[in-house]
Amino acid sequence: MSFNVAVLVSGNGSNLQALIDSPKLAASTVAIVKVISNVPSAFALTRAERANIPSRVIEHRGFDSREAFDRAIVDELQQARVDLVVLAGFMRVITPVLLEAFRYRVVNVHPALLPAFPGMHGVRQALAYGVRVAGCTVHLVDAGVDTGPILAQSVVNVLDEDDEASLAARIHAEEHRLLPQAVCWFAENRVSITEVEGRARARIRRDDHEPRL
Amino acid sequence: MSFNVAVLVSGNGSNLQALIDSPKLAASTVAIVKVISNVPSAFALTRAERANIPSRVIEHRGFDSREAFDRAIVDELQQARVDLVVLAGFMRVITPVLLEAFRYRVVNVHPALLPAFPGMHGVRQALAYGVRVAGCTVHLVDAGVDTGPILAQSVVNVLDEDDEASLAARIHAEEHRLLPQAVCWFAENRVSITEVEGRARARIRRDDHEPRL
Repeated sequence: MSFNVAVLVSGNGSNLQALIDSPKLAASTVAIVKVISNVPSAFALTRAERANIPSRVIEHRGFDSREAFDRAIVDELQQARVDLVVLAGFMRVITPVLLEAFRYRVVNVHPALLPAFPGMHGVRQALAYGVRVAGCTVHLVDAGVDTGPILAQSVVNVLDEDDEASLAARIHAEEHRLLPQAVCWFAENRVSITEVEGRARARIRRDDHEPRL
Repeated sequence: MSFNVAVLVSGNGSNLQALIDSPKLAASTVAIVKVISNVPSAFALTRAERANIPSRVIEHRGFDSREAFDRAIVDELQQARVDLVVLAGFMRVITPVLLEAFRYRVVNVHPALLPAFPGMHGVRQALAYGVRVAGCTVHLVDAGVDTGPILAQSVVNVLDEDDEASLAARIHAEEHRLLPQAVCWFAENRVSITEVEGRARARIRRDDHEPRL
């Protein structure tokens, strides 16, 4: 039986490509069954087509509210029997309509070591602050902005000569490694959620065959 | 000519001990010329005595204001011809009296990857949030709480089985490595401060003999 993943995109879709190209995913039960874009011109749609993944454009402009837009997405996801939703450069705020339909099953990747530098310009803000280490975070989406339970983080050293583009490039390379890994954890049923003092926390059960980090 | 360092403490003083024991510092021009504690019973004072470093207790309770307390510290530091002030578990808020007398010459070490988890309980907060990477930050002190220009950061992986004590122990080991390194950078005159868009940023000039990180 396959573990069905949908990827929501708005633009270039390099993280979608990383999922398509991942040998780890190819060797797993994961099937990318649907790509949904809110932007008709998103290059991610071309990536989906090249990989023979069904795609659908759902333009947010066509809806009266965020909730109605999310309802249309949820309908599409449920028709495709989706188990996990991956936000890969999806530039819309998610409402409880989607979060409740896919409770603890919506994953996002953010180009900063959360909780530092949430929001739209994580890389730029990290550079402006002057941090020496940056990175990326794969996390479950909750009602806040980049506040959900963390699944995985990876660190990138900031170099003196970095600008936003050079640092972002190294961070994105880590995203492309981390995101397929996290999707596999879901497919292998290794992610558990516990609430500790009102905050949901994700734990990844270790595979006995896996070397300790 | 020696580069004179003073260490301000309130408690155990393990970072003071790391400075005392550092082979790197021993091989440099750095001299720890003074230890100041605001707590008479601080074990750091015993560490200073064992290392034959002059120490002084200046109790904050004896002063009418934070500024008057800082003035007494500045007097002591200036008498000892101090070039750099290191806060090593010094549990008092620093005022502009000290900051202006030692502009960009007051260093602190914090057990988190700033700007995440500033304040008193960085390790506990990181664990409660559920981050996968933690660490420590050596930074210049400014008027904010743990907001000053970053000199160095080091990363520690958070393990599933970590509690506050076990994670803090690994973070402190990194502090003990990072802090002497940063003090040496000052002694070697390799730290430069630039203001970018209203925010001070520290840069460390690379030594040509030094491998790139």
